Amino acid sequence: MSSQKPSIPKGTRDFLPQQMVKREYIINIIRSVFQKYGFQPLETPAMENLSTLGGKYGDEGDQLMFKVLNSGDYLSKVPDGVSENGSKEFTQHISEKALRYDLTVPLARVVAMYQNDIVFPFRRYQIQPVWRADRPQKGRFREFYQCDVDVVGSESLLVDAELIKIIDEVFSSLKLNDFTIKVNNRKVLSGIAEVVGEKGKEVDICVAIDKLDKVGLDGVNEELSKKDLSADAIQKINEFLNIKEENYLQALEKLIQSSDVGKEGVEELGILIDHVNKMKLTNAKLTVTTTLARGLNYYTGTIFEAVINNASMGSVCGGGRYDNLIGMFGKQEIPAVGFSFGLDRIYEVIDELNLFPDNFESATKLMFANFDEDLLKDLLPMLIKVREAGINAEVYPVAAKLKKQMSYADSKQIPFVALVGSNELESGKLTLKNMTEGSQEELTIDEIIEKIK
Amino acid sequence: MSSQKPSIPKGTRDFLPQQMVKREYIINIIRSVFQKYGFQPLETPAMENLSTLGGKYGDEGDQLMFKVLNSGDYLSKVPDGVSENGSKEFTQHISEKALRYDLTVPLARVVAMYQNDIVFPFRRYQIQPVWRADRPQKGRFREFYQCDVDVVGSESLLVDAELIKIIDEVFSSLKLNDFTIKVNNRKVLSGIAEVVGEKGKEVDICVAIDKLDKVGLDGVNEELSKKDLSADAIQKINEFLNIKEENYLQALEKLIQSSDVGKEGVEELGILIDHVNKMKLTNAKLTVTTTLARGLNYYTGTIFEAVINNASMGSVCGGGRYDNLIGMFGKQEIPAVGFSFGLDRIYEVIDELNLFPDNFESATKLMFANFDEDLLKDLLPMLIKVREAGINAEVYPVAAKLKKQMSYADSKQIPFVALVGSNELESGKLTLKNMTEGSQEELTIDEIIEKIK
Repeated sequence: MSSQKPSIPKGTRDFLPQQMVKREYIINIIRSVFQKYGFQPLETPAMENLSTLGGKYGDEGDQLMFKVLNSGDYLSKVPDGVSENGSKEFTQHISEKALRYDLTVPLARVVAMYQNDIVFPFRRYQIQPVWRADRPQKGRFREFYQCDVDVVGSESLLVDAELIKIIDEVFSSLKLNDFTIKVNNRKVLSGIAEVVGEKGKEVDICVAIDKLDKVGLDGVNEELSKKDLSADAIQKINEFLNIKEENYLQALEKLIQSSDVGKEGVEELGILIDHVNKMKLTNAKLTVTTTLARGLNYYTGTIFEAVINNASMGSVCGGGRYDNLIGMFGKQEIPAVGFSFGLDRIYEVIDELNLFPDNFESATKLMFANFDEDLLKDLLPMLIKVREAGINAEVYPVAAKLKKQMSYADSKQIPFVALVGSNELESGKLTLKNMTEGSQEELTIDEIIEKIK
Repeated sequence: MSSQKPSIPKGTRDFLPQQMVKREYIINIIRSVFQKYGFQPLETPAMENLSTLGGKYGDEGDQLMFKVLNSGDYLSKVPDGVSENGSKEFTQHISEKALRYDLTVPLARVVAMYQNDIVFPFRRYQIQPVWRADRPQKGRFREFYQCDVDVVGSESLLVDAELIKIIDEVFSSLKLNDFTIKVNNRKVLSGIAEVVGEKGKEVDICVAIDKLDKVGLDGVNEELSKKDLSADAIQKINEFLNIKEENYLQALEKLIQSSDVGKEGVEELGILIDHVNKMKLTNAKLTVTTTLARGLNYYTGTIFEAVINNASMGSVCGGGRYDNLIGMFGKQEIPAVGFSFGLDRIYEVIDELNLFPDNFESATKLMFANFDEDLLKDLLPMLIKVREAGINAEVYPVAAKLKKQMSYADSKQIPFVALVGSNELESGKLTLKNMTEGSQEELTIDEIIEKIK
């Protein structure tokens, strides 16, 4: 029993009730929209075998995984001399498991393991924490939730369109009504590389283009020339970035027509937009733009992300089609498309814009003050009645000073307090105090239920 | 990209949608009851510092914790020669964190860290996984959810009574209507040890008594004599175990009257039962019994657990008052009482008794078959309308063979399928197929919404 001041690991967080009710408010909306669109939940273990995770996220990812020490007398199983070869090799002998790094590799593993139990197209969502040993900094954590939604096993662009409609519905439900969904297609980016005569430099081009918002056109051009792109290629890329025409897709098609893959990308974008239009977006502004690149490595078709326009935050969700990734554990490739909501970023934005509700359904709505424990025999049946009506309610557990009880209700932001003394019990009218307005009135228990329900 | 058959760590589980909807059905009921009683959510990190967890669960617990390897070149920080002293000492140099082992020690840490932010009495619930490197066996896992609910900072037995009412309400809501809640008080057990002249042997007595259900009275007596209790003491203990009187508490008080702590325990049980009676249990049978002991180490007052009478499973939830534990990280002791639902056990019982609902609110209720992608422009607005009515719905993403689409709906247990061909669009009447009954009828989209909502 140490009396040392306790702490938690760097980059991790506790969520006290006042944060939790807000996080759950967001998660509940996301989850209910996922379900409304026919998606079903999946959960996977926090720990995965290193044979599953290793080599999937590049060298950096391998380094940033939290590895779990083998149980028991693990040291006795390490061959002699291994410790001289450094930590990296040593780890392979004392650890077989790591905490999951994202929700996509576990999805791919699940698809491979349960092919015969899963109904394809597999519409699944997964809302669970992931862990990365990143250097902690503002807004970046070592444990954070991802809210992923994916469709595995369908090439139909209707599915891509539905995901965009989901973003529209989630943000609208969260009252974030001013947002833009940017859309592009990985094949368009390949097409651009082909058209400008720099095939094979897709990654360099994408990395540079992706920074347009941050560094401006000059910055992009500087980066492109550093990557040894010809002046001619850079100028042609600028033509793409400068498309201003009303009919963006038509202009894009014209510029990209010498590339087959590029034309295919433009065509896919056309079909996608067509599907999205049939579904009528509520608030989203949809923008097709070649300036969206996203982390290139595994996307193969549609890519998209969303930005809340009136908030000081980058993208709050993003994803795309990745037709070669899910099959990594199996023998055949399986098409897939999906995206992830950034819970922490969405929380920040809602907080910044002051859009959290004043009261949360999950919070206590009514507290009975406790004046005298002898009155409990009359008070408790009322408490039960209120709860049976579906109202979250509690009684202060002891007959403490009223000031203390009111201060408890106040700190817990309970909006109503019922005062029940012997007079009130005799008359059948309780005093209901409205904690927000400071007002009070005399009501029967049934009237109280009716009023605050 | 290995093509090796993927697997998950021993003792961990994936939860595919068909299990997830059932788990969430249980969790949602538990959570909503917690909230109805004024409890608020808390979440803590999966990893805790070893300085927080170490020494809290005994030697065995320390061994069964999953320890997380330090990041970076951890090996360079290990002093020379340490590896010769074995794994246990070595671990202290390469690991500072472990996965949480339960939700109680994190609660105690949270109370110590945020004393000034927390409103006491702190009514919190926490539903999160914990990890233990136990030998995996039937019904025992290395990763499993705990659903904890505790009140920290109140000595009032009204709180203990409310927890018992919560058990009553949760199991009743889950339609598990035949269950018994056994109640005892740790002070009664101390009193028994005192009365039978074996003060100091509380633990031995409790461990033996706790086995009564399994080994019978002879078995208990055998165990007691192995622990060197006198024949006289054992005979007196048997008197306690044999109380058959209608008025159990009165009989118990008579037997225990020479022990002050024992009398206090009986008095507390009396007050507790009195409070519970005022709250009117719906289905629970409440039984006071000295034969309930529970893991003795940290309970100080009320103890209780629940058993589903018509199921082949031990206790499915249990807890009690532990007034000396929460203060472990601070300077003062803080009273607390709480309990934990065993999610896996409850799942098993509901499954065994066939009490899961046929349809889950979270599942897809309606699928639109896809006959022709040209019809999507008329079909998608209908899909949107159904979703806006709050009905979970989806459209099959491509115009595949109808048999394939129906087989998808069937495997996903979607209860209704809407068939929309060009004839249907012209007449405005869709064909709604009831997948459970095999029947079908012609309805407008509004009639469909009305029908299946």
